[in-house]
Amino acid sequence: MLNIAYAQMEVIPGHPDKNTEKMLQMIADAKEKDADVIIFPEMAIPGYFLGDTWEQSSFLADCMEYGKEIIAASKDIVILFGNIAVDWKKKNNDGRVRKYNAFFAAQNGKLIHPDNMPYPFMIKTLMPNYREFDDTRHFFSLQKLARELGTSPDQLISPLTFKVNGKRYRVGCLLCEDGWSDDYELTPLAILQRHAPIDFFVNISASPYTLGKNDKRNRIFKAQAKTVKAPLFYVNNIGLQNNGKTIYTFDGSSTVYSSEGNIVACCAPYEEALGVLTLEYVSSLPAVEIRKKSAIAHIYEALSYGVRHFLDRIRMKRVVIGISGGIDSAVAAALYTKVLGPENILLVNMPSVFNSETTKGLSQQLARNLGCHYMIVPIQESVEHTVQQLQEIPVEFLKNHVQSHLQVSPFVTENIQARDRSARVLAGAAAAFGGGFTCNANKAETTVGYSTLYGDQSGFLAALADLWKYQVYELAHYLNDEVYGHEVIPQGIIDIVPSAELSSNQNVDEGKGDPLKYPYHDYLFRSFVEHWQKATPEDILNWYLQGVLEKKLGCADGLVRQYFPTPAAFIEDLERWWNLFTGMAIAKRIQAPPVLAVSRRAYGFDHRESQNGPYYTRKYREMKAKLLNTD
Amino acid sequence: MLNIAYAQMEVIPGHPDKNTEKMLQMIADAKEKDADVIIFPEMAIPGYFLGDTWEQSSFLADCMEYGKEIIAASKDIVILFGNIAVDWKKKNNDGRVRKYNAFFAAQNGKLIHPDNMPYPFMIKTLMPNYREFDDTRHFFSLQKLARELGTSPDQLISPLTFKVNGKRYRVGCLLCEDGWSDDYELTPLAILQRHAPIDFFVNISASPYTLGKNDKRNRIFKAQAKTVKAPLFYVNNIGLQNNGKTIYTFDGSSTVYSSEGNIVACCAPYEEALGVLTLEYVSSLPAVEIRKKSAIAHIYEALSYGVRHFLDRIRMKRVVIGISGGIDSAVAAALYTKVLGPENILLVNMPSVFNSETTKGLSQQLARNLGCHYMIVPIQESVEHTVQQLQEIPVEFLKNHVQSHLQVSPFVTENIQARDRSARVLAGAAAAFGGGFTCNANKAETTVGYSTLYGDQSGFLAALADLWKYQVYELAHYLNDEVYGHEVIPQGIIDIVPSAELSSNQNVDEGKGDPLKYPYHDYLFRSFVEHWQKATPEDILNWYLQGVLEKKLGCADGLVRQYFPTPAAFIEDLERWWNLFTGMAIAKRIQAPPVLAVSRRAYGFDHRESQNGPYYTRKYREMKAKLLNTD
Repeated sequence: MLNIAYAQMEVIPGHPDKNTEKMLQMIADAKEKDADVIIFPEMAIPGYFLGDTWEQSSFLADCMEYGKEIIAASKDIVILFGNIAVDWKKKNNDGRVRKYNAFFAAQNGKLIHPDNMPYPFMIKTLMPNYREFDDTRHFFSLQKLARELGTSPDQLISPLTFKVNGKRYRVGCLLCEDGWSDDYELTPLAILQRHAPIDFFVNISASPYTLGKNDKRNRIFKAQAKTVKAPLFYVNNIGLQNNGKTIYTFDGSSTVYSSEGNIVACCAPYEEALGVLTLEYVSSLPAVEIRKKSAIAHIYEALSYGVRHFLDRIRMKRVVIGISGGIDSAVAAALYTKVLGPENILLVNMPSVFNSETTKGLSQQLARNLGCHYMIVPIQESVEHTVQQLQEIPVEFLKNHVQSHLQVSPFVTENIQARDRSARVLAGAAAAFGGGFTCNANKAETTVGYSTLYGDQSGFLAALADLWKYQVYELAHYLNDEVYGHEVIPQGIIDIVPSAELSSNQNVDEGKGDPLKYPYHDYLFRSFVEHWQKATPEDILNWYLQGVLEKKLGCADGLVRQYFPTPAAFIEDLERWWNLFTGMAIAKRIQAPPVLAVSRRAYGFDHRESQNGPYYTRKYREMKAKLLNTD
Repeated sequence: MLNIAYAQMEVIPGHPDKNTEKMLQMIADAKEKDADVIIFPEMAIPGYFLGDTWEQSSFLADCMEYGKEIIAASKDIVILFGNIAVDWKKKNNDGRVRKYNAFFAAQNGKLIHPDNMPYPFMIKTLMPNYREFDDTRHFFSLQKLARELGTSPDQLISPLTFKVNGKRYRVGCLLCEDGWSDDYELTPLAILQRHAPIDFFVNISASPYTLGKNDKRNRIFKAQAKTVKAPLFYVNNIGLQNNGKTIYTFDGSSTVYSSEGNIVACCAPYEEALGVLTLEYVSSLPAVEIRKKSAIAHIYEALSYGVRHFLDRIRMKRVVIGISGGIDSAVAAALYTKVLGPENILLVNMPSVFNSETTKGLSQQLARNLGCHYMIVPIQESVEHTVQQLQEIPVEFLKNHVQSHLQVSPFVTENIQARDRSARVLAGAAAAFGGGFTCNANKAETTVGYSTLYGDQSGFLAALADLWKYQVYELAHYLNDEVYGHEVIPQGIIDIVPSAELSSNQNVDEGKGDPLKYPYHDYLFRSFVEHWQKATPEDILNWYLQGVLEKKLGCADGLVRQYFPTPAAFIEDLERWWNLFTGMAIAKRIQAPPVLAVSRRAYGFDHRESQNGPYYTRKYREMKAKLLNTD
């Protein structure tokens, strides 16, 4: 009998000391539970998203030293764990020291050598180099090593063999992407299978949460276990890791798949857990029902975990939120209040002459419902002082001593208001309150930069910036109905027209508001960012001409005709937002706060972009000219 | 006789229409000059730094279409050029369509097929995946293709053959990194050489400017030409490309190396040029003397080119600069004034009660010397209004209706001042003036976040953020002595102690100022960022204990003893800045403006980082304990 423990631990990136301590504790716990084997996630010791910390030799050596402690702890237990492996005598292609993303196995204080490997560890073969991943920048793959050695990966990828209680076991070891080989030219699992019989397979991962990813993984890994006719242990970490601009939660969701392709055990998401299964019983265990949850329930789970852990990471205990009476700030307020408690939240309403009694009242109502600290800081006087200073103080051209004056347009005044609220009031209030202030931007605004830099675009974290506007509304309902169980976000905030209230053109009581038609633009913008092949105006216009646009975008039927009576109006709208998306909005995103990622494509490191200005393909220009008869 | 033209063109990233137009013009010019061959840079049609624009299928198709125009223009001339090549039937490892970074050759309307290639183009073999480069994310390498085809790169890498005037020529084609193979397991040049005789080699590049890189390239490429006993044409583009946060100038510096290893032609940096050489005469040409320039002259050249082109790119014609009487803002003012002319520059001095008459006078003097627009906007009233509002408006805790008040500390007030200047005055003034405002931060400040977010950390571009403080001073002298030829930056600004003047503790007239000891910290911080193996406190303390710290850092001898009388003082300083560098400063850099890169490691995409908090290795902790006798 072989008792296998799977350790769904929180990995703290860049802190091998803490991770090692946690692992040693879990090893002791596993021994208590009579485990013969314990499995830890990929990169359990260093963490995974570390930026260029991988270029610090002393950090690398430190991780190797901590690895030795884990190896030393393997008395009477087989420990499988992920760590960085350094070959100080060899080079990476950047000329720096050779680093492998490695899978170690240790027993009785010694490493177990995989059958055909030149090192006493397995090496990650497939290196993700898309979305938020950057493996190829730092880690030398098994494929490269095979080439260097004049052999092929097939000759190196091989099972581990160890003995427990006199019985010999063979394990197939995979590192994360090695199990997602569809788009690669080789399949590590298939190569391992040639060494059958293998008693069980292990996939150690550091796999960030993305909406819908677990369903896909279960589909793929069930099929894998069935194909190889052996149990598959998928062990993923929990916690929070980031690439600077983009922050990922890791949900764990470690799962055991039986050789029949059933899920026989699954750790709760976002919770540390040490499960133990007896290998020989895996096939006889009943299939576990995975509780189906709505998308918004998953999103809430990820966001609340992410916010809590990000605050921990940066040691922030109190938060200030500017509330306008609109939906985004209300959802942010309800979310943070749940995480930190109302005693640690200061809500600030900052009216100018353009703010209606309606939204002022709704803000007050929201604050009362949440029971937070609340203050009202009017900005009118300060804004007027700024406009006055800028217009009245003479500007002297020192070449000829001619004096002139700046003119402050209504549009410039709109942005002065937005900056006055954030950079003056909220930043000051946050520092005085002993915390930071939030950025409440959603993904639609962020896409086209419908926000003011150093104004509503600022904050320490943009927790909602990976949510389309319709998801913000869904989250509002979810918070009221499921999280709080009563109406904390007033219905009036849900019903009111979205508006920045920065001028009389945005008067909510007259039903005026944002230029964004969210039921359409949410989906148009999603096609620019999240579609597998990113859509451009050429694709959009093509779909429009073919009459399949709404279907392709996934928005409601009839919207396009309703919003845009003529092709010219349609094109004007398309170009307006495309120009912003690929123009000023990039400049704003470069200086935007970190985004908490939940979608299949979040802004930041996940969606890399250059300030190159808008571009329209020749085909687009030709289609447009034909449509408008201007060619 | 074969006349070879090398086209050092400006490549505009993401604008294949403009690049194609430029190329067609240069092809016509080359024909006028009786050229038989014309060589364009790598990725001449699409540009190189495009972020994830490579995931837009319609953009890819567009580039291919423009490529056809270039191919069609090859009547009576051989055109060698870089473009993206798409194989719509195959996949990249991310599952998206297959993309190659390709080297095309066309003659008489048709592509010339390299001898052993499965495609009618050469494919980049070595993919840089360090610093600012991201090739592996987007492009499928020749090595991967070879593996897919079950062959080796040796079998695919082969010369191009074409005939001109009845004579057969063979060309060795390389793409940028292919010529920098020291750290790779194969050397494309050596493979090509096996096909000798080859008449000449071509390296088409998209190689961003980095201080010192050209010297290294000349050393390596001279040796290569000598080794292969054939002329080598290195053709690089000029222009500006960016990865969002990090902006690179491309200096061109296209060079022809003779088979004797001499430089026989070299285009002026940062200028479009169409050189023509007769292949058969290359060996008889005299070696060209490369004019040696000081480092600061190179830096000024890169910065002034970069600022000019970045302003063009974002269509900004006027700039506002807050000037404090300190060195950074003075250098920024002199730099931008040279680029845009004084009529397009508004300098703004924004005194509070903490600003000395000295610095106010120096600001005025600077503005007069430059002859720009100038205004003085006091911030005292606004800052007091903010502090008053924050302290006097009651905060109500709505759970129990208890009222309290925020307390604004002197430190909080310092940051309120900084934000008042930038987010209130400069941002408003810039919008009214019709432009943007600059961020004048240097690299030392940026390293440790010695700046205020939404305050002096903000602006549309941080042109000096890749310069250490000593380089800012060098640039000040260079601007006065070489660029303007007279003192525009007053000597008083060069002499004054650097200070933020945000409190009475920073009184310049009393010689008080920044906590940064630049003659030491410039070099300490450089070791964290720019050293080949990034230094950490473990390395620093190790060097300190060995008595080699100053030598390792490159700073002046005796400084460490002078600044830090005791080991405890040394360690306190080290940890103070390391905590900031790996803590709050990362949060600030995430929201900082784009950086104009000149060094071997600039902030942003070139130096990737995660907000993981400070970490000290075990060895460091042990050394420290031993040193302080606290173990």
